Amino acid sequence: MSYKAPLKDMMFAMGELAGIDRLSALPGFEDATRDTAQAVLDEAARFTEGVLAPLNAEGDKHPSTWKDGVVTASPGFKDAFRQFAEGGWQGLQHPSVYGGQNLPKLLATPCIEMLNASNLSLALCPLLTDGAIEALLTAGSETQKAIYVPKLISGEWTGTMNLTEPQAGSDLALVRTRAEPQADGSYRIFGTKIFITWGEHDMAGNIVHLVLARTPDAPEGVKGISLFIVPKFMVGDDGSPGVRNDVHCVSIEHKLGIKASPTAVLQFGDHGGAVGHLVGEENRGLEYMFIMMNAARFGVGMQGIAVSERAYQKAAEYAKERVQSRPVDGSAKQSVTIIRHPDVRRMLLTMRALTEGARSLAYVAAAYSDLGHQHPDEAQRAPHQAIYEYLVPIVKGWSTEMSLEVTSLGVQVHGGMGFIEETGAAQYYRDARILPIYEGTTAIQANDLVGRKTLRDGGAVVAGLLTEIDRTLAELHVHPSFRTSGAFQSMHRHLHAGRDALQKSVRFVVDHAKREPNAVFAGSVPYLMLAGIVLSGWQMARSLIIAADKRADDASFYDTKIATVHCYATQVLPRAMALEAAVTAGLCADGVPMLDEDQF
Amino acid sequence: MSYKAPLKDMMFAMGELAGIDRLSALPGFEDATRDTAQAVLDEAARFTEGVLAPLNAEGDKHPSTWKDGVVTASPGFKDAFRQFAEGGWQGLQHPSVYGGQNLPKLLATPCIEMLNASNLSLALCPLLTDGAIEALLTAGSETQKAIYVPKLISGEWTGTMNLTEPQAGSDLALVRTRAEPQADGSYRIFGTKIFITWGEHDMAGNIVHLVLARTPDAPEGVKGISLFIVPKFMVGDDGSPGVRNDVHCVSIEHKLGIKASPTAVLQFGDHGGAVGHLVGEENRGLEYMFIMMNAARFGVGMQGIAVSERAYQKAAEYAKERVQSRPVDGSAKQSVTIIRHPDVRRMLLTMRALTEGARSLAYVAAAYSDLGHQHPDEAQRAPHQAIYEYLVPIVKGWSTEMSLEVTSLGVQVHGGMGFIEETGAAQYYRDARILPIYEGTTAIQANDLVGRKTLRDGGAVVAGLLTEIDRTLAELHVHPSFRTSGAFQSMHRHLHAGRDALQKSVRFVVDHAKREPNAVFAGSVPYLMLAGIVLSGWQMARSLIIAADKRADDASFYDTKIATVHCYATQVLPRAMALEAAVTAGLCADGVPMLDEDQF
Repeated sequence: MSYKAPLKDMMFAMGELAGIDRLSALPGFEDATRDTAQAVLDEAARFTEGVLAPLNAEGDKHPSTWKDGVVTASPGFKDAFRQFAEGGWQGLQHPSVYGGQNLPKLLATPCIEMLNASNLSLALCPLLTDGAIEALLTAGSETQKAIYVPKLISGEWTGTMNLTEPQAGSDLALVRTRAEPQADGSYRIFGTKIFITWGEHDMAGNIVHLVLARTPDAPEGVKGISLFIVPKFMVGDDGSPGVRNDVHCVSIEHKLGIKASPTAVLQFGDHGGAVGHLVGEENRGLEYMFIMMNAARFGVGMQGIAVSERAYQKAAEYAKERVQSRPVDGSAKQSVTIIRHPDVRRMLLTMRALTEGARSLAYVAAAYSDLGHQHPDEAQRAPHQAIYEYLVPIVKGWSTEMSLEVTSLGVQVHGGMGFIEETGAAQYYRDARILPIYEGTTAIQANDLVGRKTLRDGGAVVAGLLTEIDRTLAELHVHPSFRTSGAFQSMHRHLHAGRDALQKSVRFVVDHAKREPNAVFAGSVPYLMLAGIVLSGWQMARSLIIAADKRADDASFYDTKIATVHCYATQVLPRAMALEAAVTAGLCADGVPMLDEDQF
Repeated sequence: MSYKAPLKDMMFAMGELAGIDRLSALPGFEDATRDTAQAVLDEAARFTEGVLAPLNAEGDKHPSTWKDGVVTASPGFKDAFRQFAEGGWQGLQHPSVYGGQNLPKLLATPCIEMLNASNLSLALCPLLTDGAIEALLTAGSETQKAIYVPKLISGEWTGTMNLTEPQAGSDLALVRTRAEPQADGSYRIFGTKIFITWGEHDMAGNIVHLVLARTPDAPEGVKGISLFIVPKFMVGDDGSPGVRNDVHCVSIEHKLGIKASPTAVLQFGDHGGAVGHLVGEENRGLEYMFIMMNAARFGVGMQGIAVSERAYQKAAEYAKERVQSRPVDGSAKQSVTIIRHPDVRRMLLTMRALTEGARSLAYVAAAYSDLGHQHPDEAQRAPHQAIYEYLVPIVKGWSTEMSLEVTSLGVQVHGGMGFIEETGAAQYYRDARILPIYEGTTAIQANDLVGRKTLRDGGAVVAGLLTEIDRTLAELHVHPSFRTSGAFQSMHRHLHAGRDALQKSVRFVVDHAKREPNAVFAGSVPYLMLAGIVLSGWQMARSLIIAADKRADDASFYDTKIATVHCYATQVLPRAMALEAAVTAGLCADGVPMLDEDQF
């Protein structure tokens, strides 16, 4: 089997760390019990392992193709997507009134992980559709919701996000696509959008493009952008698809990875104008798009965790088979499987520690989101939501950056075989490389973390998280295992140093942002990475305590968890010290920001 | 221009750090003056920039091809290699008696860097040929030297290293290829070799395969391996190529990168036996192969530096062109080129700091090799050679591992465009991925560093280097710039912490290797990385002092150097602390080495 869903660790993160029991106590989530969760996860595992995972390498070998404007998905993808739709997987976390299952984000999260681990390219299509659903639910009219959302949830149609233009990547102020109002209240859209994921394909009956464009009198910059629905096929009021709209895919990109996922250049209005419908109010498009983007950013963070898990599994499998060299401790006279070599164990455990650390943080973040939306005490919602929003750029930035390390280690474990494409390890390395780029590069995430998530409240949310870490540190220290366990001692020492590093970095950011913005923003990515490492480390510390307490229930699982946490404490957490130096140096002394361009 | 040789930094590293003037004072190297060096480097730059660099992307798009046993190099490669041969570039560091130019390794090193930066795939062919020349010069008979070496140096023929077999990668004890002695003193070779770089091609008239094989009565394991010359075409005593030998390329690999370089599966003896000639004595093949490997390992380290330099140049060029977003310091109201954004500067400077740091260490290592070979005082040779040998696994392991980070940052600077293959940044990311694997993975380098280079002398060589670092620290501290320069202060602080981390790590290795080999070898790669970071940091500290002293000569160059050193001090050197924790943790507590295979 090419992918086996890590159900035990997922249930551990959901049940013990993120506290699913708290969620099933919330109004509307009564059905989201542990038993339901286990049943949903089992079913998701069966589907993703059996149907999607075997198509992953095939999609890489046979990318989606473009011919005369028609994009054909990789072999087997159309049928697999049909099964995905029929299984109701798109609707997991969406309202039951539109056909969804209304489950907590926490419960949808492991399903999304499995989807992406089994097939990153295919999973992008539902990921974008989720964003379109969220934007329409938030800003669409009742009619728009009624027409589009049920079809998106059922998987009959799919959704896209149309932001980027050739001159406008991260910088949406530069968007030039025009929207001309028509007498009937609709608009005609003209322009070119690039990098549109699943922007054209043959897996669904219609594609609902959500498009950023400017109306004629719109103000300049990001305050003049509106959001439009531009369906591939026009839609009647009864929801039936009609004639082809004037939006056409003129080419797809030749990419480093996720080759099965078509990345489209879309041309709007070359034949008279594409019909578009305004979503919400004019000039508030960016705000609505952020709803899509926040959902998508969390989703891309999960992609990082997913591809890391898969890379780990492949490497571990190879390490158990490949025979090479005698053990350094002299425990065998013959060559042994390489998993017995300490450096291979270091690599595998580091891969695992990074993956499980990022997973635990992401799942906990999902629970904060659920509490932020559904907590019966309204006063409790805002603080939970604020923590979730602090964590979104971290889940996105840190989980995807760490996936580069994990997939690279995955190649390394394979040695020379890792460089041969047939082996498959290289695909994860190539696929992962887009993750720290799309839906906002790591620098964009880090700017969000510094600007909106740290400076705006003077570091109050992160200060609350530091207090939580202190509580966990105290628990580690008084735990009966502390005196005898190297894992406890290492974790306590390095988490303590890490939380100090995070605190000092936050203070540097807060204190220097006004006077020395270049210094602060030169350290924004190191700050994000530091926060990711320490906050995941906090979850790993909590895992350690639980594992020690529950060891008798399942010694094999919990011993592995303890070893993984110990690896995290010694191989990952100490990086916090190095990152603190990078944050607080600010690259500012001796005139670095003053270097002329020609000195680079 | 797609590549511009960094001649100033190369001359700086050769002249100021590695001390070329000391070398031209050595007997045999009288011609190797600064002026000669400048002239050779200028010529190398002209050739590599003009002829080889433009073929690099072409080779990626049109890999070498295999048909019916015949391998055709990528378009343009054959002609470019002819120009390489005619330019005398293969002979730079080889003896003039065989047609070489007898230049110091230090002078050959920047040429090798340019060769690899301009075209990594093509440069692999001379890199392997260099190894073959070194092995033959060391272990070949006079006749063998006379027949093969001049043709290899002239570039009429090329060389290969045949170690790996399907079941024997890093573990040469498993080699099964047989060598049967014949009445005429030759041998018949039978077996399969894989991963043979440039093992078959059409760029040269003959290919000299150096092949590890076992004679019938050889002892088991690595002590029973002998080295054989197996030419593609038989060679007469007058050096004329004759009939085709029984060695055939049955396929080439489909790889992640370096696609223009054919990676061959070679079948020896399917039609009666390939004729082979023993090199040196029976059963000493591994020892001779190590001569090739040590030369090749240093060369692969240079490849890491080379591909990093090229990735940096591409990213810097893009950052100067791409317009996106307003500056965070409010210094412009419009969108600006992204090189004005602090995070882009951080990425570019980090790429540059890593590249220049590794370059300076490698060039200094080359000078130690020259002193080790040519010092007139024989008593001085051994200690210089010992330092070089300590540095070889570091130059190989650290320079190649850092190239993964640099080429990844290169993609990141490009944003979404970096993921599109046409852009070219992705090629460096793919090409670089083999470097920490071939010629011995980083773990193999680290085992060498721990075993032969640290434990064998109880850490004496590295202790000597630590003393040198202390001297540099003292120089930093008394320097007039110390009180006012952030670069000086940061460098002093972090180099001091780094040398302490290195010292503690060495002590851990030396103290624990016997009792806890698993603990030590689980930290061997972190130890190698730590040594690379600190020793390169030492060279960067020396660079800083020189730059401050010479600033008036060339303010633009030296200011950039100071900024780059400052970046190294704050973004790279602090990682030493994290690595020390990784080394000394040993992954040993709580039974990590005891985890069963099924717990992975």
